[in-house]
Amino acid sequence: MEAGRQHRAFERSAAVHREEGGVEFSRIVAFSDGVFAIAITLLVLAIEVPENAPDLGQILRSQEGDFLAYALSFAVVGKFWLAHHRFSSALLRFDNTLMGLNLVYLAGITLVPFTSEVLGDYGDAPAAYIVYATNMAFVSVSFSGSVLYAYRQGLMRPETQAFERRYAGPANFLTTAVFVLSIPIALVSTSAAVLIWTATFVIGRRAADKIAGIQRSD
Amino acid sequence: MEAGRQHRAFERSAAVHREEGGVEFSRIVAFSDGVFAIAITLLVLAIEVPENAPDLGQILRSQEGDFLAYALSFAVVGKFWLAHHRFSSALLRFDNTLMGLNLVYLAGITLVPFTSEVLGDYGDAPAAYIVYATNMAFVSVSFSGSVLYAYRQGLMRPETQAFERRYAGPANFLTTAVFVLSIPIALVSTSAAVLIWTATFVIGRRAADKIAGIQRSD
Amino acid sequence: MEAGRQHRAFERSAAVHREEGGVEFSRIVAFSDGVFAIAITLLVLAIEVPENAPDLGQILRSQEGDFLAYALSFAVVGKFWLAHHRFSSALLRFDNTLMGLNLVYLAGITLVPFTSEVLGDYGDAPAAYIVYATNMAFVSVSFSGSVLYAYRQGLMRPETQAFERRYAGPANFLTTAVFVLSIPIALVSTSAAVLIWTATFVIGRRAADKIAGIQRSD
Amino acid sequence: MEAGRQHRAFERSAAVHREEGGVEFSRIVAFSDGVFAIAITLLVLAIEVPENAPDLGQILRSQEGDFLAYALSFAVVGKFWLAHHRFSSALLRFDNTLMGLNLVYLAGITLVPFTSEVLGDYGDAPAAYIVYATNMAFVSVSFSGSVLYAYRQGLMRPETQAFERRYAGPANFLTTAVFVLSIPIALVSTSAAVLIWTATFVIGRRAADKIAGIQRSD
Repeated sequence: MEAGRQHRAFERSAAVHREEGGVEFSRIVAFSDGVFAIAITLLVLAIEVPENAPDLGQILRSQEGDFLAYALSFAVVGKFWLAHHRFSSALLRFDNTLMGLNLVYLAGITLVPFTSEVLGDYGDAPAAYIVYATNMAFVSVSFSGSVLYAYRQGLMRPETQAFERRYAGPANFLTTAVFVLSIPIALVSTSAAVLIWTATFVIGRRAADKIAGIQRSD
Repeated sequence: MEAGRQHRAFERSAAVHREEGGVEFSRIVAFSDGVFAIAITLLVLAIEVPENAPDLGQILRSQEGDFLAYALSFAVVGKFWLAHHRFSSALLRFDNTLMGLNLVYLAGITLVPFTSEVLGDYGDAPAAYIVYATNMAFVSVSFSGSVLYAYRQGLMRPETQAFERRYAGPANFLTTAVFVLSIPIALVSTSAAVLIWTATFVIGRRAADKIAGIQRSD
Repeated sequence: MEAGRQHRAFERSAAVHREEGGVEFSRIVAFSDGVFAIAITLLVLAIEVPENAPDLGQILRSQEGDFLAYALSFAVVGKFWLAHHRFSSALLRFDNTLMGLNLVYLAGITLVPFTSEVLGDYGDAPAAYIVYATNMAFVSVSFSGSVLYAYRQGLMRPETQAFERRYAGPANFLTTAVFVLSIPIALVSTSAAVLIWTATFVIGRRAADKIAGIQRSD
Repeated sequence: MEAGRQHRAFERSAAVHREEGGVEFSRIVAFSDGVFAIAITLLVLAIEVPENAPDLGQILRSQEGDFLAYALSFAVVGKFWLAHHRFSSALLRFDNTLMGLNLVYLAGITLVPFTSEVLGDYGDAPAAYIVYATNMAFVSVSFSGSVLYAYRQGLMRPETQAFERRYAGPANFLTTAVFVLSIPIALVSTSAAVLIWTATFVIGRRAADKIAGIQRSD
């Protein structure tokens, strides 16, 4: 049928190629960046401004948990943004499924201002760490899903094999596994969970590269 | 008159063509994307952080309604964004009226964080579902209005007939009708309303394509 | 002196031309659009979600003022954005002063979520209308300032004389005067102030065109 | 090893050149601009809308501190944005470290809505001024760090020597020193701290230029 053929042509053009349909590709990326920028800026709303505090300095010092959660979450969302940035640089085009996967991933990112506030307010409740760890595991798993899908559907640039080796290979599963494992660990020791998160961010990429057999030059 | 002619020329150039006035066209689209990105990220503010909860885990479990409303609304706004994305890909240019229609549509999108919070907080009140359904019907009707106007004024790309067939034809009225009909349905059964919304998002496009006589290839 | 000459060259290049320094010009415009998009989306936060309302429907109906203020302010900010959009389309380049004037103008735009919430909450207090009218007058005056400055410094495109005739001529002062005059009018009658605002938005441009001696063709 | 070479090539391409990898460079800049736009717009949330005020006008007049803090912080963030804008105009490319430094800097910017609200609410508590001064010193120091790093790594355009002379030379340290010094000064006199901040913004650049031996032409 004529309509069917036209439609297929239109649908195919929806899987926009980076060079051909520059505007559309960059719109999806710009939308994601916008969500990241807003989520990272909303983190500040979790730091409560004390009301009618007789001794402001003392109250602010007691909000240490809020500030630590802010710093941790800013670093976390920042790192996720850098990874997403690197991923979309390596991407050749989006199809409808990848757009959907990207939205699921972003739904995890926009939850961070909530789970971060919970963590800042309930620094001594294991439930707060479990909620936070679940959020990070969700983001990590859905990011892996996006990368794996893009890799298998041939949506990545051919020259980005080092990228895909790290993120779509066993090394990435290790990172994701660490986040998932930090959920039960938070039940036993909240400090251990925080330590694991920090370690993952500091040495995570280096370790992942080693496992993937990639020598770093920088 | 000379001034009149100059003015007409200026006004005409305001209906910016995608190729000629790339910057202006993309600005309108970027503004819309920005509003979408902010609205979708503000949804998280509807999830209340419990204050001084003695048992955090138990309180968070009782907030199930907030999380469901968050997930539903994220999917809804995400789907609307994908449709808007597809619409503006098929668009050739904006004129002043379409910019106005687009603003009316966006006014509906930015209401979602409010109606979503109402839905999350009042999961057993039919009024909450009516408010939510009204919001979605408003967005759906104003989107149809934009598409119909753009189609009739020849603002669409000539090669996008499959798109217009689906969104400007009877198939689209069906989708819009479902949203409008969910308003009285919510009065009778709130579960039925939620079921209809979910169904519309899952099978909506497929059904619309069938009615429009479009064979899908993906 | 050598350093002075180098510096002047650098400073001159800071007054970025639309074609030469496309990235920088578009960044200023994108920043302004971002502020507009956020301000217009934050308006929704002014609509309070009722807490523990026994009769949700009745409470929501009593929030009529919030919804009217939301609709009015969305239209107002939307109109201001369209005017700003038209202005920057007619602009050839930015210099440091115009960037400063633009920031002052944006400071007025970002106040709208506050004054709009005041208006929605205090629909029977003249002070609320005065605050709102002052905000609009500030935005209107600072916009005129930007346009006048850009016109006198030759920062506008030569072919946009119809634009400048309307916005930099007496017609624009009329519009601005109306906003300024609505401040004392709100003291006497709040309904009259609302009527004047609405009228300005509905017939304002048409009247301004007539005074500027411009025949409209659309 | 082959993988290592491929990886190095990929890593090197991550230090995106402005001309080669326009999209990636502009994404980092757009992300920063987005964070600035959101932070500057969130400032308005610090102005409390009075609840059930019997005399609205009188209550609003008593919120003078909120409005002053809003105006000051809008000017501060606006100035920081202009400096960041000028910096990235002079930048040739980003590498991974500069992206990290930029995130640290942005973490300081997004704190301003919090410290600004504290300042607006506690106008008579020295602790509020110390918090605010610390925030500004943090932003100023981390900005200097970014500029210095970019300068030393050769990431700046060769023709921007006037820029680097001002921001990477002793003149910039003076500005940063003023912010750092305002922390202890706020302990002694809060008015003196505000005076110093205002003076830095009004005459700061002119003084810095003089020290850097740059003659201004505008």
